[in-house]
Amino acid sequence: MHFVPDSLAITSLRAAYHAGTATPEAVISGIYDRIEAAPLQPAWISVVPRAAACAAARDLAARRAAGEDLPLYGIPFAAKDNIDVAGLPTTAACPAFSYLPETSALAVERLLAAGAIMIGKTNLDQFATGLSGTRSPYGACASVFNPAYASGGSSSGSAVVVAQGLVSFALGTDTGGSGRVPAGFNNVVGLKPTIGRVSTRGLVPNCRTLDCVSVFALTVEDARLALAAMEGFDPANPFSRPIPDTAGEPPAGGWRLGVPRAQDLAGFPGLAGADLFAAACRRAEALGWRLTEVDLSPFLAAGKLMFGGAWVAERLAAFGDFIAAHPDDVLPVTRDIVLGARGISAADTFSQFYELAALKRAIAPLWDDIDALMVPTAGAPCRIDALQADPLPLNARFGHFSYFVNLLDLCAMAVPNGFLAESGVAMGVTFIAPAWEDARLARIGAAHHAALGLPPGLAGAAASPAAA
Amino acid sequence: MHFVPDSLAITSLRAAYHAGTATPEAVISGIYDRIEAAPLQPAWISVVPRAAACAAARDLAARRAAGEDLPLYGIPFAAKDNIDVAGLPTTAACPAFSYLPETSALAVERLLAAGAIMIGKTNLDQFATGLSGTRSPYGACASVFNPAYASGGSSSGSAVVVAQGLVSFALGTDTGGSGRVPAGFNNVVGLKPTIGRVSTRGLVPNCRTLDCVSVFALTVEDARLALAAMEGFDPANPFSRPIPDTAGEPPAGGWRLGVPRAQDLAGFPGLAGADLFAAACRRAEALGWRLTEVDLSPFLAAGKLMFGGAWVAERLAAFGDFIAAHPDDVLPVTRDIVLGARGISAADTFSQFYELAALKRAIAPLWDDIDALMVPTAGAPCRIDALQADPLPLNARFGHFSYFVNLLDLCAMAVPNGFLAESGVAMGVTFIAPAWEDARLARIGAAHHAALGLPPGLAGAAASPAAA
Repeated sequence: MHFVPDSLAITSLRAAYHAGTATPEAVISGIYDRIEAAPLQPAWISVVPRAAACAAARDLAARRAAGEDLPLYGIPFAAKDNIDVAGLPTTAACPAFSYLPETSALAVERLLAAGAIMIGKTNLDQFATGLSGTRSPYGACASVFNPAYASGGSSSGSAVVVAQGLVSFALGTDTGGSGRVPAGFNNVVGLKPTIGRVSTRGLVPNCRTLDCVSVFALTVEDARLALAAMEGFDPANPFSRPIPDTAGEPPAGGWRLGVPRAQDLAGFPGLAGADLFAAACRRAEALGWRLTEVDLSPFLAAGKLMFGGAWVAERLAAFGDFIAAHPDDVLPVTRDIVLGARGISAADTFSQFYELAALKRAIAPLWDDIDALMVPTAGAPCRIDALQADPLPLNARFGHFSYFVNLLDLCAMAVPNGFLAESGVAMGVTFIAPAWEDARLARIGAAHHAALGLPPGLAGAAASPAAA
Repeated sequence: MHFVPDSLAITSLRAAYHAGTATPEAVISGIYDRIEAAPLQPAWISVVPRAAACAAARDLAARRAAGEDLPLYGIPFAAKDNIDVAGLPTTAACPAFSYLPETSALAVERLLAAGAIMIGKTNLDQFATGLSGTRSPYGACASVFNPAYASGGSSSGSAVVVAQGLVSFALGTDTGGSGRVPAGFNNVVGLKPTIGRVSTRGLVPNCRTLDCVSVFALTVEDARLALAAMEGFDPANPFSRPIPDTAGEPPAGGWRLGVPRAQDLAGFPGLAGADLFAAACRRAEALGWRLTEVDLSPFLAAGKLMFGGAWVAERLAAFGDFIAAHPDDVLPVTRDIVLGARGISAADTFSQFYELAALKRAIAPLWDDIDALMVPTAGAPCRIDALQADPLPLNARFGHFSYFVNLLDLCAMAVPNGFLAESGVAMGVTFIAPAWEDARLARIGAAHHAALGLPPGLAGAAASPAAA
């Protein structure tokens, strides 16, 4: 039996490696034991062979001995299967689309260079289109807390493998909430950085102007460490942007949070866990933060453009030709959404740009009064069978509090917020701030998560009052 | 007979007002004498009644006496007739479209607040669509130097009235070169500021994401003064942008100019005045500036998107409904261009955004090596009858060196560069720099124009060796 620390949190592994109580090879080997023993959940699409991962772990020791700086030394991670990893197929959850990349995505390359160890590629909603976790020929992922409930998506597998303790962190992608919604339902952290902070070079494009590489981790600090290893301007990627300096310091009187008005929450059909969100507000106040009610209308109006507007045509531009050529190799729900964008005109597109620009401008003054917006990560969990029977409206409900973020050029941090009594499914809250205020969200998210006082991932349920 | 200084240059008028040798009322009255005596040229669409302009001039004296700061005290100006001026109809050169605005465009309001005096609204290519100056039911404007040759457009009348000495400066608009091409053919300065530097609130939209308010003036300094009075962030306009600080200082070794390679100039069909452009290069070198040949290909590829791509659909979004409802009230050339955008899809639009983003990124490193690009403002003048017989290809030739500027988020300054021997038409050069480097272009343009040594506007021809 190999020694594996109870938690794969980066900070825990670092301490164990430093103390000499664990080695990367032992940890990796233990992870493969866990993967083989893990309950059946279609979270993986492909896994690096155990021998190769163990060899990578041994190589690391040699690199460290040679004096290399390896900030993620021996940290196991996974990547959503729309992110290229050299030597593993990229499927985007569409076997007919699969290809074998020769080079890894820049984000993956940087993580490997920093000493992280690739374990495998994770399941997703096909072509990252959806927030459900059930739109995959590789199987529907469930919340790790209830097999009848959807994991959320599209980065379903990445959230699940982190929650299960099979990796320290996992890469997702986030266009309309795919890096946040499944974090919420699985009691882990979901970091959706500012657009352009991490290069999207080496991703299967979805909406090129909105796509982000995201991070699922057990703690905000772990997510921040992974981001730090990946981020940076990439001149070869036209959507990469130079990162400006931002302080991330709280104002003198403490953080100022905007929260939805009561009617904005009540306007969400079937909101679950209103008590959990109310508790999140009390927790913030107990931390000395000031809460202000915010009219969510302009945010929600922007969010409607994600699938009710021209941006679906980015998906058509990205993989419409493939779908048209292989209509029977694509899930009907995905095919219908993407080909539906054929009817959208250029003039419609520009009109919606103008609408979005006006909404951005209308929202801008709000950021003088609040440092971050706090919303439920998703309004309610959903049963897998219900989502599969009626995919579009239920999926759109998952995106109610997430769709607007990338369209409005905001960054976001989803953190755990407890469990629903009935289903046992985890719920989250998401903190949202203007572009480049990622450091601010890390401070806010870390403090709020620490105040929750529940272990992240699977271990959280046992410790939760809701589970009692 | 009223006293009017020989030149209406802002700096000249200021000196005359300061010395007490002229008053705004006398200058305005003299201008109306000139307008009435001016050769027939359909440069105006509407003119403020003489009595009203003279009353405005008298009011100014009272405002100054009351201690108001009036940086443009008594400076007469005109505005292209797609810019709202309260009390004058806005036609966009389409009588059926005409409306009477109750409030002026923000740019006009600011100029009036600064003490400038509105004289009238100027002719343009209908809906600012074209670079020719001949697409107007109010008549074709000619270069002030040859009645057979087009003035260039779309801000035709604004360039003409400045060149004729009827106003100190005139506002134009510039989406693909409309603020530069007619400056070139009329021996005046055309300042195309960075997108978002001057609010476009109160303009008839053309391509909302690209439109700029531009300035025609006799000198770069005058254009700069007008810009300074107009510019500034406008929260009510979604396309306005906060202006960052930029120094505009030359590098230690003097300005570094990029110039087209010989094959880029030779690739322009029917380039006129190659000798003039060569002289502009020598003049720059004589100023101690360093010249580097630049491959124009990525710039020209971006320029092709202006009318060969999705951005025409911005015009369709702006006035397509009007054209569809009033097909016989619109010039056939304008109607066909705009309605032609109906066939462009949202997916095409996004694909072209990606192409443009890649071109921007490909060009970006160039700005480490040069401070500005210098190109001919337009490649060759064109006879009015030829333009009217075959409008599209000849118009596109006018835009060869101008279309790419706004698409690539650059700023530009067109300055005079002498006269063609055959036609006597003026030619210009345009300096181009990254967004917000307007101050840099003002320094470069002013020095280059001063080195030319020819008076601006109409007076230039008599002093030119080409005219001898």
